[in-house]
Amino acid sequence: MDGTVSQALDDTALVEADRSTFFHPFTAVADQQANGALVMSQANGSRIVDASGNEFIDGAAGLWCVNVGYGRSEISDAIAAQSRKLPYFHTFNGVSNEPGIRLSEKLLSLAPKSMRRVFYGSSGSDANDTAVKLLWYYNICRGKREKRKIISRDYAYHGVSVASGSLSGIPMVHQNFGLPLDFARHVSRPDLYRDAPSRQCYTEEAYSAYLADELDRMIRAEGADTVAGFVAEPVMGTGGVLPPPRGYFQEIQQVLDRHDVRLVSDEVITGYGRTGTWFASEACGMRPDLILTAKGVTSGYLPLSAVFVGDEIWSVIEDASKDGRVFAHGFTYSGHPTCAAAALANLDIIEREGLVERVAAISEGFRASFDDAIGDCDIVGEIRSAGLMMGVELVADRETKARLPASAKVAGRVAMAARRHGVLVRGLPNSDIVALSPPFIVTQEEIGLLAGGLRAAIDDVTKELRSEGLI
Amino acid sequence: MDGTVSQALDDTALVEADRSTFFHPFTAVADQQANGALVMSQANGSRIVDASGNEFIDGAAGLWCVNVGYGRSEISDAIAAQSRKLPYFHTFNGVSNEPGIRLSEKLLSLAPKSMRRVFYGSSGSDANDTAVKLLWYYNICRGKREKRKIISRDYAYHGVSVASGSLSGIPMVHQNFGLPLDFARHVSRPDLYRDAPSRQCYTEEAYSAYLADELDRMIRAEGADTVAGFVAEPVMGTGGVLPPPRGYFQEIQQVLDRHDVRLVSDEVITGYGRTGTWFASEACGMRPDLILTAKGVTSGYLPLSAVFVGDEIWSVIEDASKDGRVFAHGFTYSGHPTCAAAALANLDIIEREGLVERVAAISEGFRASFDDAIGDCDIVGEIRSAGLMMGVELVADRETKARLPASAKVAGRVAMAARRHGVLVRGLPNSDIVALSPPFIVTQEEIGLLAGGLRAAIDDVTKELRSEGLI
Repeated sequence: MDGTVSQALDDTALVEADRSTFFHPFTAVADQQANGALVMSQANGSRIVDASGNEFIDGAAGLWCVNVGYGRSEISDAIAAQSRKLPYFHTFNGVSNEPGIRLSEKLLSLAPKSMRRVFYGSSGSDANDTAVKLLWYYNICRGKREKRKIISRDYAYHGVSVASGSLSGIPMVHQNFGLPLDFARHVSRPDLYRDAPSRQCYTEEAYSAYLADELDRMIRAEGADTVAGFVAEPVMGTGGVLPPPRGYFQEIQQVLDRHDVRLVSDEVITGYGRTGTWFASEACGMRPDLILTAKGVTSGYLPLSAVFVGDEIWSVIEDASKDGRVFAHGFTYSGHPTCAAAALANLDIIEREGLVERVAAISEGFRASFDDAIGDCDIVGEIRSAGLMMGVELVADRETKARLPASAKVAGRVAMAARRHGVLVRGLPNSDIVALSPPFIVTQEEIGLLAGGLRAAIDDVTKELRSEGLI
Repeated sequence: MDGTVSQALDDTALVEADRSTFFHPFTAVADQQANGALVMSQANGSRIVDASGNEFIDGAAGLWCVNVGYGRSEISDAIAAQSRKLPYFHTFNGVSNEPGIRLSEKLLSLAPKSMRRVFYGSSGSDANDTAVKLLWYYNICRGKREKRKIISRDYAYHGVSVASGSLSGIPMVHQNFGLPLDFARHVSRPDLYRDAPSRQCYTEEAYSAYLADELDRMIRAEGADTVAGFVAEPVMGTGGVLPPPRGYFQEIQQVLDRHDVRLVSDEVITGYGRTGTWFASEACGMRPDLILTAKGVTSGYLPLSAVFVGDEIWSVIEDASKDGRVFAHGFTYSGHPTCAAAALANLDIIEREGLVERVAAISEGFRASFDDAIGDCDIVGEIRSAGLMMGVELVADRETKARLPASAKVAGRVAMAARRHGVLVRGLPNSDIVALSPPFIVTQEEIGLLAGGLRAAIDDVTKELRSEGLI
C-alpha cells in the first residue's frame, strides 16, 4: 500500500461515532459498545488496511464477494463514467438502459443454456425473495395455487429478508425473529463428516441416496401438490462449506422431477468462478429452473443481484402475459445502470485475466497449503474445499470428532486471533467452522501468509482451550 | 445536452437484445415483446435523452428518487474516489468504514431527535422487510412473542419482497403471488376525494376520527396482544398521492399508544426533502418508532436504504444484547462504503444548495402551474399535492366523480401520451391517477413544460376517450 493510510483520519473519533450512531448487521450490540469498531480504510489486491494503519490479507474476499480483488481501477472508472452519463433510471414498464441490456446479454452467454432471461435486484436476499415469488407466480399462472411450500436445508444460508430468512436454516437467523414462516420446510444438509456416519452411510453414493429419500418422504408427507420448489447452494457456503456428496444432486433431481418440483440453485457465493467454473450448478449435477446470483457479479463493488429464469418458468410467465398480465414485482434499482456497468467491467476482468481458469488451476495448491499448515493441529477435525472456498471444522478431539462446547465460540475466537496475525477469515454462525474464500487473484505468497496466519491463530486458541480445560 | 447522444449506439440492436434477455420489473412481458423497450441513454439536470436522441423532462425523478437531478459530478466524483480507495467491505461483527460512520452521524443529525441508530440495506423493500423483523425481534426480546401482526393501509406501497409486498395494499402486488401473508392486515387509506364523502365525513377532522376508530376496532378485533405495528407513509405516494387529512396521524397515534403498537413511518418517498422538510413524519403529526428511507438518500445514484431506529425499540435491542445476543440480521451490502459516499455527496448538495427550502418555496407555484394548465380539463377530477409530489385523479365526469372503466387504463395512456409530448409522468398502478415528482432543481421553465406537456397528453387522451364513447 502507498503511504496515504492515515491521512488525518481520527480513528478514535470514528470509533466513537460508530458506537453512537451505526447499527451493525450480525453484531452483538453490547460487544460493539464495549470493544468499538474495526474501521477499514483502504484496500488493494487482497490487502486491506484499517484506519490505524494495520494491514490484513483478506482471506474472505469481504463476504465471499471481492473476487477480482480491491483497487480495480477498470471497475471504478466504468462506474464513474456511467454515473456521469446516466447515473440511474428505472426499468419498469419496459424502459431500459444500455448497461442493463449489455449485462443481460453477457450473463446469458455465460449461464447454462436453459436460462432464458435475467431479473435484477440488489442483494442475495432479494434474489431469494424473488425466487419465492417467481415460484408462486409460476404455479398460480398454471393453476396450481396450493403448490407453495419451498424446501430448503438445515443450516443453509439464503438471506435475511422474512422470506429468504425462512429459507435459511441457520438457527440464529430464526431465533428471536419467530422464523421460519410456514411456507418453508427443511431437510438435512449433506454433511459427510458428521451426518453420514451417524446415518450409517458408508459411501458417498449411499449417503446421497439416503438424503434424496429423506426429501422424497418429506414431499410425499406434505403432499406434492403443495410443494413448489427445492432451493440449494451447489456447494453450501455459510452452512459449513459443504461440497455435495457424489451423486447427490442427480438423486435429488430425480425426486424433484417425479413430484413436479422446481429446483432453485442459489449461486450467490459460487457464481462467476468461485469453484473454478463460471457456475457450479451443472458441474454439481443440477438442472436448475432458477439460478440466483449476487456478490461475484460485481465483486461487491456495487450492490447487484441477478436471477436467471429458465425455460420452463419463463415459458409460463410469457404465456400468462398474453392477456396483458403485468409481472407486478421489481425494485426501484432493478437494472440500475451504474451497478450494471460495474458488473460488466468486473466480468470483463474475469474473462480477460482468465480468473475462472486461474481458480481451477490454483485450487489444489491452495488446499495443499492448508493441509500442510494446519492439517496436524489437534483441534482441526476436517478441512473441506471446492475451488477457492474452504471450511475448517474445529473439534475438541480429532479421533472422536467430539465438539467443543458452543460457549467456547471457537470459530469466532480463531477468526479474532487470525486478525492479530494479519489475516481475515470468517467464523461461520452457529458452528465451529472457519471459512476462507480469498480473492481469485490471491498470490502464492499470500496463500502462504494466510495459511501461516491461520496456523498461528489456531495455535493461540489451542493454548487458551487447554488452559481452560476444554481440550 | 451536448451533442454526444447517439455515439455509435445501435438502438435497434439494443431493443432486440433487451427483448430476448432482460426480464423487466412491473412490465407485461407480451407488451415488451410487442413494443420493444424505451432505452434511456444519458441525462442532465431534469432532462433525459433516449438512445434515439429524443429528450424528455423527467417529471417523475426516475421513480421518486433523483431529487438532486442527473449529472451531479460531485456525486459521481465521490463514488469514484471511494471506489478507488475502498470499494467495499462488510460491516458485520462490528467492522465499519469511514463513509458509513460519517453517514450515520449525518443522518441522525437530520432526523427527528428520538432516533438513535441507523441500519442499512439497499432498497425500500429491504427497509420495510427490516422493519417487520425489527418489530418481531423487539417484541420477542420483551417477552411478547405473539405480538406480530402489522397493520398497513389499502393501496399502500411498501415494497415487493414477500413481507413488504404483504404490507403493500395495491391489488396487483398481491394478485398472482398469493399475497398478503397472514401477518399483514389492512385498514382504509385516507382518501378525502372519494372515501370521505361515502363515509359521510364532511370535515377532515371527522374523517380522521372515523379512520382512527376503524384502526382501533381492528386492533381490538385482532387482539392488541397480537398487533406489533402500524406502517404508513406520511403522504401516501404510489397509493394515490394522498396527504393525510387534518388530525389524522394525531388520532392514529393515540390509538397506537393505547394498544402498545409501534408506528413505522415509511419515508422512502418523502425522506430528504420531497415535501419541503427533511422528513415528513413530524410535520404530519407522527411520532414514529422506526423511519424507513431509501431513494432520496442517494438520489438514486446508488442503491441504499437507511432505517432509523428510535428510542423505545433501540433500548430493548441494546438491553437484549447484554447476554451476548447477536442481532442476526443484515445484508452483505449493509453500510456499503461506496453507496454511503454517494449519500454523503448527495446530502451535501441538498444542504449546500438549500434544496429542501427550495422545495418548500416553489411548491405553491408548482401546484398553481398545474391548476392553471389542467384544472379545467373534463377528465381531471382532482389535483392533490404536497411539496413536489402531485397526483392527478382522472375521471369520466368531474361532477359525479364517475370513474372510467379500468380497461380504459387512462393513467397509463396519459403517461404514454405525455412521453410523445416530451414529458415523463407516472400512471400509478391499479388507479386512474397520474403522479408527478420532479427533481428538486426543476426550473420554472421546466415546470411550465411539464404542465403544458401533461395538458397536451390529457387532451389527446380525452379525444380518444370521446371517440371510444367512454366520456
